Amino acid sequence: MQSRRHFLQKVAASTIVFPILASAKSANAVSNMTPDGPVLRVAIMGLGGYGSRVAEAMEECKLAKLTGVISGTPAKIKRWQQKYSIPDKNCYNYENFDNIRNNPDIDAVYVITPNALHKDQVIRVAKAGKHVICEKAKEGEAMVAACKAANVHLLVGYRMHFEAKTLEIIRMRNEGEFGKILFFQGLSGFEIGDPTQWRLSKELAGGGAMMDIGIYSINGARYMIGEDPIWVTAQETKTDTTKFKPGVDETIQFQLGFPGGAVASCLSTYKMNNLDKFFLNGSKGFAELQPSTGYGPIQGRTHKGELKQPHITHQAMQMEEMSQIILQNKKPIVAVDGLEGLKDLKIIDGIYEAVRTGGKVKLSLG
Amino acid sequence: MQSRRHFLQKVAASTIVFPILASAKSANAVSNMTPDGPVLRVAIMGLGGYGSRVAEAMEECKLAKLTGVISGTPAKIKRWQQKYSIPDKNCYNYENFDNIRNNPDIDAVYVITPNALHKDQVIRVAKAGKHVICEKAKEGEAMVAACKAANVHLLVGYRMHFEAKTLEIIRMRNEGEFGKILFFQGLSGFEIGDPTQWRLSKELAGGGAMMDIGIYSINGARYMIGEDPIWVTAQETKTDTTKFKPGVDETIQFQLGFPGGAVASCLSTYKMNNLDKFFLNGSKGFAELQPSTGYGPIQGRTHKGELKQPHITHQAMQMEEMSQIILQNKKPIVAVDGLEGLKDLKIIDGIYEAVRTGGKVKLSLG
Repeated sequence: MQSRRHFLQKVAASTIVFPILASAKSANAVSNMTPDGPVLRVAIMGLGGYGSRVAEAMEECKLAKLTGVISGTPAKIKRWQQKYSIPDKNCYNYENFDNIRNNPDIDAVYVITPNALHKDQVIRVAKAGKHVICEKAKEGEAMVAACKAANVHLLVGYRMHFEAKTLEIIRMRNEGEFGKILFFQGLSGFEIGDPTQWRLSKELAGGGAMMDIGIYSINGARYMIGEDPIWVTAQETKTDTTKFKPGVDETIQFQLGFPGGAVASCLSTYKMNNLDKFFLNGSKGFAELQPSTGYGPIQGRTHKGELKQPHITHQAMQMEEMSQIILQNKKPIVAVDGLEGLKDLKIIDGIYEAVRTGGKVKLSLG
Repeated sequence: MQSRRHFLQKVAASTIVFPILASAKSANAVSNMTPDGPVLRVAIMGLGGYGSRVAEAMEECKLAKLTGVISGTPAKIKRWQQKYSIPDKNCYNYENFDNIRNNPDIDAVYVITPNALHKDQVIRVAKAGKHVICEKAKEGEAMVAACKAANVHLLVGYRMHFEAKTLEIIRMRNEGEFGKILFFQGLSGFEIGDPTQWRLSKELAGGGAMMDIGIYSINGARYMIGEDPIWVTAQETKTDTTKFKPGVDETIQFQLGFPGGAVASCLSTYKMNNLDKFFLNGSKGFAELQPSTGYGPIQGRTHKGELKQPHITHQAMQMEEMSQIILQNKKPIVAVDGLEGLKDLKIIDGIYEAVRTGGKVKLSLG
């Protein structure tokens, strides 16, 4: 029980749900039951920088474990096998990973590859009968449909939805402590380096700063205000046409209108550092986060004072919670399923349209 | 010399120019020469809340002195006469203030009346041969022309242009410490109270929040970036149509583009408190002010650390400096003349047009 108590302390901000196996899909987790609950056994697809970060974070997890890898680079696979004791039978490449269907050691695949590849990869994972965790993805409808058809979860890697200071602001908002919500401001950006990276290729990234970092302000506007926007306006600025080719946005300002009358003012950029700020203003009080979506620790305050919830590695917290969502049917405070991801992408489409037309674009997120 | 030394300490951020009488216009100041320099003798027109604040601040001044009043309310005049020892011969009402022309005790009139009255009042003051200091005003061209024709100064009550932390940021920018300037953000607003006040009358205020408080973000964008904008887009939100009648704006978001590629994102509102923030971001560093334009003390920091310039009552600093601009031909670091005020008002016209058309409005500030 000691380790369970330790875990309870670590995830103090979340509610522990006792292990109830919910569906036949998770039946193979029975063999992986621990005193803390069933463990989600995860294969990571794409062994780049963020994949490494998730893998390292998962070492802190009690309810999620790295059990497999999918990569096109044999040398990377070898390194990961050694570091994380992954057996050969749990290693795949991009040709053969459909065989994961027959692997009882893997419950879910976390897809961490360039954006443009997600659609096909997610559909193949779903068809292999495994749950999917995915970073943002274009053409999300097909992914959502494929996962629904295969009766597997599709979750989006929204680590901020489990971050303790963020959740405290959401709790305060839900309890009316800010009064009527009036304004959200999100500034998301950094100065991008290497001009040859996939993030600066329209083909691989599906866009520019907006798809990569601006999306944090889009999603933040939604979870901080607690509504979905109904219109968007946007203005693009491009100061470096060599680095930022057509279709790859450098700097976009955008504004969102919400059904309750709140407005949001946001900035997405690959051209500036010193940005990572959220500000929520209501008739009775405010909240500020800065940094607001970096890997942490997040810092912030409200009209009542500094937020002091302890920092837990975001990716660890996310994987603990996603394990419970998938294996125990836990309902997260802020949704993290594929339909949520779809909403952010529809807003991005609206932003690009608003840039193109120069007008106000109505949004219908369904 | 002791009082001079004391003054030098107080206005440490400014440069003292030795008194040189520049023109026949200021010849009557000779009789008012002090060891600190010639004193600007000021009549205040409009004895409301802000007029009282300016009068009190001027008690700290060495180079400016309240010597007259103009008001339509005899009881107010009496109270001010007692408080500031103003003789009967220096008191005027709105019918007879043209006679100020014959009053050698008054060099300048500070017009602090509702916006819509400024034009006629300023023109009458100019025709009476007195310098004019004025808060923001619609139809500024006529005022600028009248003051030019009468060979008097027209200065706008830009107190922030003399504020020490603001000037330090401008110094750092001019010396390249922020690198290339990329982004400015200004949030200006407060929740307005009494629905019957002149600020909520289209006739008297000439607009709504934008004319009163949003203008701080407009002007701030210009002095923080150090350029004049070339385009504007804007989005209006009105949640209370009872309090905010047609033509009186409640909440407007607006975006400005600058010739050097910087963009600005601003909010103007009469609906929210907790706003008064400037943020300037460049390729090498940043500056933040919060509060940024309130009566102070202003607080702020840059990438190099906290700004520690001492607070001096803004209106006192402004009047000391304006005395030197008018009587000693001192050149301010950031211009405060009528043409500057005109630029802000042209931008406001552009914002209202952008709200109306929903499109991007090109600005030509000349």
